[in-house]
Amino acid sequence: MDRVTIVEVGLRDGLQNEETILPVDVKREIAEDLMAAGVKELEITSFVHPRWIPPLADAAELACSLSPVEGVTTRALIPNRKGLERALATPVDEFAVFLSASETHNRKNVNKSVADTLPVLREVVEEATTRGKRVRGYVSTVFGCPYEGEVPLPRTASICGELLDMGVYEISLGDTIGVATPVQVREFLKALTKEIPAGCLAGHFHDTRGTALVNAYVALEMGVTTLDSAFGGLGGCPYAPGASGNVATEDLIYMLEGMGVETGVDLDALCRVSEKVGRRMGKTLPSKVLASWTATRRLKEGNPHE
Amino acid sequence: MDRVTIVEVGLRDGLQNEETILPVDVKREIAEDLMAAGVKELEITSFVHPRWIPPLADAAELACSLSPVEGVTTRALIPNRKGLERALATPVDEFAVFLSASETHNRKNVNKSVADTLPVLREVVEEATTRGKRVRGYVSTVFGCPYEGEVPLPRTASICGELLDMGVYEISLGDTIGVATPVQVREFLKALTKEIPAGCLAGHFHDTRGTALVNAYVALEMGVTTLDSAFGGLGGCPYAPGASGNVATEDLIYMLEGMGVETGVDLDALCRVSEKVGRRMGKTLPSKVLASWTATRRLKEGNPHE
Repeated sequence: MDRVTIVEVGLRDGLQNEETILPVDVKREIAEDLMAAGVKELEITSFVHPRWIPPLADAAELACSLSPVEGVTTRALIPNRKGLERALATPVDEFAVFLSASETHNRKNVNKSVADTLPVLREVVEEATTRGKRVRGYVSTVFGCPYEGEVPLPRTASICGELLDMGVYEISLGDTIGVATPVQVREFLKALTKEIPAGCLAGHFHDTRGTALVNAYVALEMGVTTLDSAFGGLGGCPYAPGASGNVATEDLIYMLEGMGVETGVDLDALCRVSEKVGRRMGKTLPSKVLASWTATRRLKEGNPHE
Repeated sequence: MDRVTIVEVGLRDGLQNEETILPVDVKREIAEDLMAAGVKELEITSFVHPRWIPPLADAAELACSLSPVEGVTTRALIPNRKGLERALATPVDEFAVFLSASETHNRKNVNKSVADTLPVLREVVEEATTRGKRVRGYVSTVFGCPYEGEVPLPRTASICGELLDMGVYEISLGDTIGVATPVQVREFLKALTKEIPAGCLAGHFHDTRGTALVNAYVALEMGVTTLDSAFGGLGGCPYAPGASGNVATEDLIYMLEGMGVETGVDLDALCRVSEKVGRRMGKTLPSKVLASWTATRRLKEGNPHE
C-alpha cells in the first residue's frame, strides 16, 4: 500500500452542497492552488443542467479557464448526452457518470429508475470513449440510502458490472449520507471484490457521522487504493444541513503520511487553500488537521484566540 | 470484540481544557444525565491543586454532590498524596494516577522528572489500595510529545511495568496531542502487548488531527477493548487552542454499534446532554454524530438553518 491515489472532489462534491456560490475566478484560483499544492486528480465541476445545481452553473466557463498542468487530470461529472456535448466543448480531461444503487435515491436524484438510467450512461460512456475520453463511474448510497435504508450488495455488484461493461475504467463507491461503519465497509468490500477487482474501485466517504477516515483506512486495507476527498472537508449533506461533508483531504493525507504513504501533496499549502476558501465562505471548514494547523499558526503569531 | 468498555472522561479531560468554567450544579446535572444515558464509567474530576486547573477546582464538592448509581463507577484523577487525602474524603469510587512517557512533557506537567514521579504515584496507589480503592494509570504522550517528538516504546513499556507493579489495574495510553496514525498504533500495540497484556490497556485518543476514531478502531483490532472518550468530543489541546478534543463518545458509540458491539448507551440521550452543554458553553461541540443528530432534528422541526 505505498501508492494511493487521491481524487480531490471539493470543487464539485464540496461546492454542490454549499450555500455559498463562489465566482468562477475564485474557483479557478482554488483549482490552481490545489494543483500547485500537489493535487494530481481534480474533479472540477458537473455539467448537470444549471437549474439543478446553481453553485456549479459556471461549469463550462470554469473548465475553459483552466490551463492544463503537466501530470494533473481534471474531471467533470456528466449526467446525460446534453451534458456530454457541453463538456466536450471544453478542455476538461476526463468525465464521470453517476447513479444510485438505491432505486428511490436514484429517482429523486435524476428522475429516472436505475434501469432507465443505465442506457443513458451507456450512451455517454460510449460516445466519450469514442472521443478519446476516459470515464469514471459513481455509485451512490451503496452503504445506505436515506429513503430505503440498507441497500443489498448484489444490487451494487450488478450496477458495477454494467458500468465496467460500458467501458467505465473505475467505480467510486459512495457513502453518500455518511452512515457506513468500518466492519460494514470491510464485509462489503470482501464480498464485492469477489466480483469486481479492487483495482477498479475507489472509496468515496462522507463524514456525516465521523466515520469517513476509518472507513477510508479499512478500504485501503481491503486493497482499494483510490480515495475521494475534499479540501477542508467541504460539502455538507442535503439530508442533514449543517452536518459534515466529504472526508477532508488534509485529514486523509495526514493519516496516509503517518502510514508511510507518499502522497506528493504539500499539507501546508493545502491548509492555506482551505483556510482562504473558509474565510471567503465565512465558515470554518471541518477538517481537523486544518483546525490544528490554524491553531498552531495563530499561537506562533501570538493570537491564539483570533 | 462484543464487549467494549467506554470510559467517559468529558467532565475531567474535556472540561480541564475548556475556557468556560461550569458551576458545580451544572456538572452534577451533566454527570447524572450521562449516567441516565447509560454511561457506566465516569471520570468526574481531578484532585490536582485548584490553582493549576481552575475549571476543576470544585472537585470535592462535585464528588460529594453525586448520589451513587447502581452499576456506575465514578473516578477522579489524583496527582499526589495531598490530592489523595482530599479525594478519600469524598465518595468517589476509584482513582487514577498519571504521568508522561516523555521526560519534558512530564516535567512541564508536574514539575518533576519521570523517575521522581514514580515514587509519588507508588505511594498514592499503595495507600489507595490499602483503603480499598482501585487505581487506574494514565501514561501521556506515548504516541508523540509536543517537545520531544517521538517517544521510544521501551520507555512506555517500562513505565507501564512500573505502574502494574505498584498495583494499578489498567493503563490508559494517551495520544495527548492527537498525532497518532493507525499503522503507528497497530505497530505500537503489537510490540507493547508482548510485555503488557492487552486486557490491562486502554486507548485514550485525541482528535487533534482527525485520527482518533480510526486509532480507536485499530486499538480494538489489537485487543484493547477499553476506550476513553468525551461526550460531544469535548476538550481541546493546550498546544493548539481551537483544535479538536477527545474522541467524541457519540462517534465512538455510533461506530461500535455499527460493528455489532452493544454499548448500553442511548445515543439519542447522549446527544441531548452534549447539545445542552454546548449551548451552555456557547459553542458547537465537535462530535460529528451530534452535528448530524442536531441537523436532522432541526430539519424535522422545520428549522434547518436555526
